[in-house]
This record gives sequence, structure tokens and C-alpha cells, in this order.
Amino acid sequence: MKDDIDTAVQRIAPYAHRTPVLTCKAINAMSEANIYFKCENLQKVGAFKFRGACNTVFSLTDEEASQGVGTHSSGNHAAAVALAAKLRGIRAHVVMPETAPEIKKKAVIGYGAEITFCKPTLTSRETMLASVIQKTGAVEIHPFDDPRVIAGQGTAALELIEEIHDLDVILTPIGGGGLICGTAIATIENGNSIAVIGTEPKNADDAYQSLMSGKLIPQTNPNTIADGLRTSLSELTFSIILKHVSEIITVSEKEIIGAMRTVWERMKIIIEPSCAVPVAAVLNQENGLSGKKVGIILTGGNVDLDKLPWL
Amino acid sequence: MKDDIDTAVQRIAPYAHRTPVLTCKAINAMSEANIYFKCENLQKVGAFKFRGACNTVFSLTDEEASQGVGTHSSGNHAAAVALAAKLRGIRAHVVMPETAPEIKKKAVIGYGAEITFCKPTLTSRETMLASVIQKTGAVEIHPFDDPRVIAGQGTAALELIEEIHDLDVILTPIGGGGLICGTAIATIENGNSIAVIGTEPKNADDAYQSLMSGKLIPQTNPNTIADGLRTSLSELTFSIILKHVSEIITVSEKEIIGAMRTVWERMKIIIEPSCAVPVAAVLNQENGLSGKKVGIILTGGNVDLDKLPWL
Repeated sequence: MKDDIDTAVQRIAPYAHRTPVLTCKAINAMSEANIYFKCENLQKVGAFKFRGACNTVFSLTDEEASQGVGTHSSGNHAAAVALAAKLRGIRAHVVMPETAPEIKKKAVIGYGAEITFCKPTLTSRETMLASVIQKTGAVEIHPFDDPRVIAGQGTAALELIEEIHDLDVILTPIGGGGLICGTAIATIENGNSIAVIGTEPKNADDAYQSLMSGKLIPQTNPNTIADGLRTSLSELTFSIILKHVSEIITVSEKEIIGAMRTVWERMKIIIEPSCAVPVAAVLNQENGLSGKKVGIILTGGNVDLDKLPWL
Repeated sequence: MKDDIDTAVQRIAPYAHRTPVLTCKAINAMSEANIYFKCENLQKVGAFKFRGACNTVFSLTDEEASQGVGTHSSGNHAAAVALAAKLRGIRAHVVMPETAPEIKKKAVIGYGAEITFCKPTLTSRETMLASVIQKTGAVEIHPFDDPRVIAGQGTAALELIEEIHDLDVILTPIGGGGLICGTAIATIENGNSIAVIGTEPKNADDAYQSLMSGKLIPQTNPNTIADGLRTSLSELTFSIILKHVSEIITVSEKEIIGAMRTVWERMKIIIEPSCAVPVAAVLNQENGLSGKKVGIILTGGNVDLDKLPWL
């Protein structure tokens, strides 16, 4: 799988930003760790999701791509698929719940995708997408349950370890698991002795529960501000997590909002709540990261600027 | 003076961030220009001011430095002097109006400076600083009327043109003029055929009025959200502007707030109102920057996150 990431690096290079790695003395002091932030919030569409979507869309044969691509998502993956399709010059069909925020609808329309609205339930989303795919012949681009998506997400960690050597740990949030799996493959399967640690909201800790019990436990009724992390793992991502992920740290809602604000104030960059989860983990010194050289993938910066969680 | 900037580059290298240069397709499309953002909002203390303060503080002989440094400022320069002094291991005395925002007082105290409060008038600030200097023997670090400060500020443009070639224009805001003078010296006096264009709020357009009339016209009663740009030029900075600056573009308060929000939304980085002024200039296509390859120095990102101008 490591080879797939090297291929993904080449494939997405013409389209994706090589995002900067930033450091912050103040946050280092607060955490007593030495932290390197890989800024995927500054990636195209404002999220790492562009890497996986771009790698997958550009992996398709011309024949596969000819009828376009489709996905269901109300978040960053939808925008990522829409932009990747636009760059390839093919159509994108996005199924979104009618309750999705206006700003997200606008982003997807802005990249030229066609939106089909559905009821805000997973069943409704899946049924509607199946119907759109049947009608259009589009290829589904799953947000995480696909080795091509996972390989694309892994390119962020690969860039990070190329630039910063001797990291002890890399932290990522876990939603469906695509990012942490790509990160593990890019580092551990590449022969690096880096611990890959997942982070989750306490209120959406399906990956933590699954790792603890050794069996896949789906999310039930997640109630967290970290809207990108409400998803459950798939069999594929869980199997990679079982193999490579040493630990999952969970954090409270209050810690998430506090970490989000700390990054805005101290680093002058915008991160969304899901992205603040690993920062919250490192800021709480009880989590055992003090004294370590820590890489954090900052996953995204899409926030409604009229509704900040501390106001 | 170009040599002074080369020296400054070496002098501040161990302390300052080499900030990233970012691009944004969406803002390019909105402006029809090709823009490279030099992100000094991501600099230490969240502003380019650290470059000039650091260069000046580390230019002092041990004897000069022995009694510490002093300045009067309610803004980014105060924090910059405080941090530079801390890094050199000397005392910093900062005179601040008692009305300064809590967040700015805290920042300066956080860097270990001693604050003396005064009434919120320029006379009171100057009188109080003179008294502090007389008592302590500290050396004054002026925010812009000093060739060492100007040389330090010029290092940002130097890094930008080292990284991005063939820029047609560099835009900076103008407050006291330190940044634009350093920028002009780093580029034009370095033999580059780059136009250095200043930008100002219409409500604080002393540099524009001065350049138009050919004589120094001080600021009177500036009423702008861009709090870093309410200062008047000095004879020194005005003379360099007369020599090198081809044009000054002015923008409205509404344009400033709109540009600030656009950068937050599209680039996921935090900029303060003063920093949004050159962005506002490039976003208004009547300003003649369409089709150009434009560098913008993003000057700072210190914003009270509880009081956003669009809320």
C-alpha cells in the first residue's frame, strides 16, 4: 500500500497545495511538547479531503470517468469531489441532506457540481445516491472506504515526515478512518518508528470503543460539535487501525472548543472543530505527550464565520 | 540601505519565522490577478513588526542594551519589542494608553515587559515614555522612524521576491511607513523592476494626501477600523515614499471588512483589519491590478475573537 501513496503523491501534485508546516512557541509551552502542524486547513477546499478525492478521481480510466462521479456528503468530501471532478473536466453529482448549511451548498455549487437533495438520514442519502448513480452511470467516490482515498489522505503525512525528521508521534482525528489509515501506511509501513495515535471526541468515540474491544462498534447517536467525526469506521479502516494504531485519545467538547480558539488566537489560522480534536489531545498534559516531538495533521478550516462556538 | 536589509536578514534569522507564501485560486478569480500572499500574520507576535523590532534590539551594543529598551504603542509594535527584548535577555518598558484592549495588555505582559499606563493621547504617551527613559536609561525603539526598523521590515519583501520571481507589483498598507519603505529598499534599490504601491483607508489617507501634494501632511482625526494605520508618516519615511512609491490606493471601510472576511473564508487564515487594506485594493478591479502578478504583505493577524466586525 505504501507504493500507492507514492503514486498518489505524483498524481495529485499538479492540483493540490503542498501545505506549510507551522510551529507555535506558545502552544509548545502550553503542552510542553514540540509540535509540528501540517496545515491541511490551507489545502484546496480548506481540507485534507481534497487529497483523497483528487487521487481517486484521477485514478479512474477515461471510460470510468466518462459518466462522472457521485458521492453523498454534507461536508468537506463533497466539495473535494466537486473540485476534483471539475479539474478533470467531468461531472460531479452530490447528494446532500436538504438541511445542510447554506455555505456548504454554495461551496459545492461553486465548484460546478450538481446537487440532489435528500432527507437528513443515512438511509435516505444512500438510497438517493444509488438512484443518482443508476440514472447517470456516475462512479461513486466514497469518503473513506476506498484504498485510493486512503492513499490520497496519506500524502499529507508523507510530506510532513519528509520535511520534519524524527517525529515521535503523529496525531490525527478519526471520523471514518481514512486519514489515520493513510497516515499509518505512509509512516509505519514506510519503516518509520513513529507512533500513530488517533483522537476522537468523547461524544463520538466509536474508534476508541472498537480498538479497546477488538471489534468494530458503530457510532450511535454522536453528539459532538466536531461534525466531521460523527461517522463510523468501515471494516477496511478498522482493520488498518487494529494493525497500526497504538492508542486513541478522547477529548471533551469543552477541550475541543478551547483548543480551536487557542489555535485561532496563537497561530492566526482558522481550524474547524473536528480539526481541533488532536490539538485538544496534546494540550491536556495528562495524555502523555509532554516531552515528545509531535506531528499534528490539521484537517480543515471550514467554519461558519457568523456562528463561532465561543460566542 | 540595501546592505542593511541583507544584514537584518542574518540578524533576525535565529528568531523570526520565515513565513509561508500562500496563493488562493478563489481570490485570484475575484480580482483577476495572480496574487502571492506573504503571511506575516503568521510571524512571531502575529505581525511583521517583529522583524523591525528584532533587528533593532539585536543591533544595539551590549552597553546600549544594558538598560533595556522602551517604546510607546498600544499595538503590535509593543508586543514585538517586548518579545525581542526577552529574546535578547534585556528589559522592555512599554508605555500604553490605559484604554488599550485587555488582550493587548496581556500579550505585552506575557512577553515579560513592564507596562506604564498613560492617558490615551499622543502627548501623554510621548511625555510618559520620555520620563520612563530618563528614569531607566532604556533606549527608545521607534515603531517606524528608524533605519534599523525599516531594514528589518524590508526582510519580508526580500524573502517574498527570493521565492516568487517576476512580480509586477508589491502592495503594502501604510501606517507610519516603515513597512513600505523597507519593501521599496529591498526591491527597487535591489534593482528589481517591481512597482511598490501603498494602500490606505480612505479615512486615514495621510500618505496619499502627502504623495499627491508632495509635502508631508499629518493625519488628522483618522476614523478607521484599521487601527494600525492611524499613524502619520515621518520625514524619513515620507522621503523614501516620495522617491520610490509609484502610487497609493485608498479603500473604504466596507471594502476593508469585506476583504478581511474574504481572506478568513477563502484562505482560512486570520488577518486584522489593517492587513485587509491591500487585499481590498486588489479585489476592486477599478484599481488597475487585474492581469498583474501581485505580491501582498499580509501584515498581521491580531484580532479580538469576541468582536468580529461583521457580527
